[in-house]
Amino acid sequence: MRKVGKNQVLDHFQEIDRLWRPRAIAVVGLSDKLGNMGQMFAIALKNQGFKGPLVGVNPGAEVKSLPSVRRLQEFEGPLDHIIICVPAREIEGVIRDAVEKGVRCAAMFTSGFSEEGHEEGRRLEERIAAIAREGGLRLIGPNCMGLHYPPRGLSFRPDMPAAWGRAAMTSQSGGMALSTLMNCAERGVPLGKVVSYGNECDLTAQDFIRYFADDPETDRIVMYIEGTKNGPELIQAMIAAGRKKPLIVCKGGRTSVGTRAAASHTGALAGSREIWQAAFRQAGARVAGSIDELVDLIEAEERMEKPQGRGLAVLTISGGFGVFATDVAAEHGFSVPQFSDATRTAMAKFINFPGTSVKNPLDMAAAIFFQGDHVPIYAPLGQDPNIDAVLVLLSIEYIHLIEGFGPLDPVSFTKWFLEQMFKGLRAAGKPAAFVFFESVKQAQRLEYVKLIRDSGFPVFPTVERAMKALAEKVGNR
Amino acid sequence: MRKVGKNQVLDHFQEIDRLWRPRAIAVVGLSDKLGNMGQMFAIALKNQGFKGPLVGVNPGAEVKSLPSVRRLQEFEGPLDHIIICVPAREIEGVIRDAVEKGVRCAAMFTSGFSEEGHEEGRRLEERIAAIAREGGLRLIGPNCMGLHYPPRGLSFRPDMPAAWGRAAMTSQSGGMALSTLMNCAERGVPLGKVVSYGNECDLTAQDFIRYFADDPETDRIVMYIEGTKNGPELIQAMIAAGRKKPLIVCKGGRTSVGTRAAASHTGALAGSREIWQAAFRQAGARVAGSIDELVDLIEAEERMEKPQGRGLAVLTISGGFGVFATDVAAEHGFSVPQFSDATRTAMAKFINFPGTSVKNPLDMAAAIFFQGDHVPIYAPLGQDPNIDAVLVLLSIEYIHLIEGFGPLDPVSFTKWFLEQMFKGLRAAGKPAAFVFFESVKQAQRLEYVKLIRDSGFPVFPTVERAMKALAEKVGNR
Repeated sequence: MRKVGKNQVLDHFQEIDRLWRPRAIAVVGLSDKLGNMGQMFAIALKNQGFKGPLVGVNPGAEVKSLPSVRRLQEFEGPLDHIIICVPAREIEGVIRDAVEKGVRCAAMFTSGFSEEGHEEGRRLEERIAAIAREGGLRLIGPNCMGLHYPPRGLSFRPDMPAAWGRAAMTSQSGGMALSTLMNCAERGVPLGKVVSYGNECDLTAQDFIRYFADDPETDRIVMYIEGTKNGPELIQAMIAAGRKKPLIVCKGGRTSVGTRAAASHTGALAGSREIWQAAFRQAGARVAGSIDELVDLIEAEERMEKPQGRGLAVLTISGGFGVFATDVAAEHGFSVPQFSDATRTAMAKFINFPGTSVKNPLDMAAAIFFQGDHVPIYAPLGQDPNIDAVLVLLSIEYIHLIEGFGPLDPVSFTKWFLEQMFKGLRAAGKPAAFVFFESVKQAQRLEYVKLIRDSGFPVFPTVERAMKALAEKVGNR
Repeated sequence: MRKVGKNQVLDHFQEIDRLWRPRAIAVVGLSDKLGNMGQMFAIALKNQGFKGPLVGVNPGAEVKSLPSVRRLQEFEGPLDHIIICVPAREIEGVIRDAVEKGVRCAAMFTSGFSEEGHEEGRRLEERIAAIAREGGLRLIGPNCMGLHYPPRGLSFRPDMPAAWGRAAMTSQSGGMALSTLMNCAERGVPLGKVVSYGNECDLTAQDFIRYFADDPETDRIVMYIEGTKNGPELIQAMIAAGRKKPLIVCKGGRTSVGTRAAASHTGALAGSREIWQAAFRQAGARVAGSIDELVDLIEAEERMEKPQGRGLAVLTISGGFGVFATDVAAEHGFSVPQFSDATRTAMAKFINFPGTSVKNPLDMAAAIFFQGDHVPIYAPLGQDPNIDAVLVLLSIEYIHLIEGFGPLDPVSFTKWFLEQMFKGLRAAGKPAAFVFFESVKQAQRLEYVKLIRDSGFPVFPTVERAMKALAEKVGNR
């Protein structure tokens, strides 16, 4: 419990929860100069449709783009949230003004603090934290992007998606937050509440993780982390949250040099790789090695059920891809076992092209490329005890095989072929994922990929990324 | 030396060399039926502009799409090359006809031989090889796509690129040959001569590798391999070729299950991973783990010089990406060292945004995003003893940062920014590669990627793939 203002007593959940719903916001350090970062925040809030009053603060001049004041105190009415873009040397005055004005939360974009590795920055950071703590003001940052919450018109960049999902994210890096936000929206699995928290001089990753674990708007929690100042507390929060909701984690600074780079990025202590891995395992987290993999995991989490085991059916339209997929599957702890006798008998009615037989990986090009109805071909997989999940490998150069030597239009044919696959996979009823290789005709490929995603299946550009996502999804817990 | 026909004595080079220049070609097993694979080959040859006579062979019927005969013998004039698409059970008769007709080479698309794992297929394969050997007919395959050589109008799929480069390829898998062909063409580094050789009942990978090593049209040799029937001979050929030209290798079937899948794909004995790795090392080969990586290596080979060491300058527009890149670089044996004092002093004239300093990774967004001329910023890297190569990390979400809050059009700005980078990197004069992350606005991204490639720099979608390519390029030899 924490005492706030004169009469209110809020618990942790309530205190964080109300940060996402400010009544009015000020952008401190807004100016009309080209390249002024305050403009980015102001336009982001306008684009996202923030409903409450929005005000610019500039002690030196009036600002054209927003109603503006010279000091926070000049604004009339309650001001719940401020975004600070002034240089580090001016920050102390702004924080004092914010306390005096009764602001609930300040998100500090400003950098030049502990992440710079000098004593002066570290001391300044401690000083403003003390002032804020004393005055009941919560701080996000410094060196961060702050909060993103489309339902209340909150965001930190003009081009952030308005789409809204049920995966919340804490990110130490602002860049990683916005990359993940944009990637996820582009892939049709938009994030929900997002916080970029930077140097954590007050509010920490664990504060938000504890909140997200109880937040009814959040079904899963995504983290990008470089390090922490309080390992035991963070790990405790992750383990507690992991009991309630799936955790998906990406760690920057996993090597000693990366750790040094992380320290100079957000001033965080990255700790040893082994400790982090143990913590992630204890929290039951799915762990991504890059932002691409992080988005893969989010997509796999949203678009497929967890496989019950590690037996994989591989459907392909090129024998060579099947060979590769088998290697990669093995390297991720999966097997590509023979189908059961029942499956083989059932499939053999359709897979009877001269010289081919029912095998796993199953070469569809030779076997079922021109089969009308895929349902009876895949349905037996649903009862096959050897098979826990299905991986489909496609690429334009194979499904456009018919191009140039037949009366069929390759695009219409492919869409029809995909629809048959979707029906067949649904009939099998086991978790399924697609790999659609990136090679040629990228625009056309994107259309097919969208069709697959719109049909509810996850799709990845390489077997490696698909298997990484599946392996993390299955876990060894 | 090998005696051919009545009077000719050809050495190995001459014998393989003339296979790429047939005077006339027959497609055996051509029919007008939908899905007939002979049509694919016939249209491929027409599309690629094969100049000589082209004839279909169908014992049962006349064919509409090409002048046709019922047997090879009915064709008048020399017939140097035939492509065989008949079922396996009819192949023996065709081979006998070809010998009788004096055909030089038969590429056999037909499958259903040793790759099926049954004794019958193996025996049939041996029998046709013996007949051909006896009759002076060379065989490619069975279970393969054959030859691709645009300058003489030779190809195996209607949609293969006509573009033509100086990297030759041997591929055990037809699918991998055409994926690599299309990928390389799409990335502006087209392949040269390509052979898909399948089951190797006569002509082998080593036959073509020996030839490519001496071929004046070939500057580098690319291999996709699943296994071999004669390891010592193949390895000898690779080592000999590796002394003359760079070898770039991709191996399918690197795990025991993948090996099993490979055996059922092309009937090859894959051997142990350790033996292959030792062989590749001895041949000085660059080794790719997937077809994507294979194309990455080809691009890196064509578009950048070999770095002299493992010190990397990382230029980024997001601190978080810099942290990741540092990790990945370390994992591939590279370092991201501090710049020399001279570099820092020179760069500090430009990198003077409040709160930032000259660091490696260098955060360009904060520092030089709006600098007009990048030449004086990067040029010092040319003299920096700590730096051997430059890695530039870009993504649309950062270079389009200006979107929505300024008078600048982001596309024009980005193109201008890229041009500045190109000039700067050329002034530095050290090997340089780009990573342009895939996230949003894919079509726009492709335009930037093309701009980078057209300017002569290699570009990769992830840091992992860039570092893999650089590591193989630098080697440990």
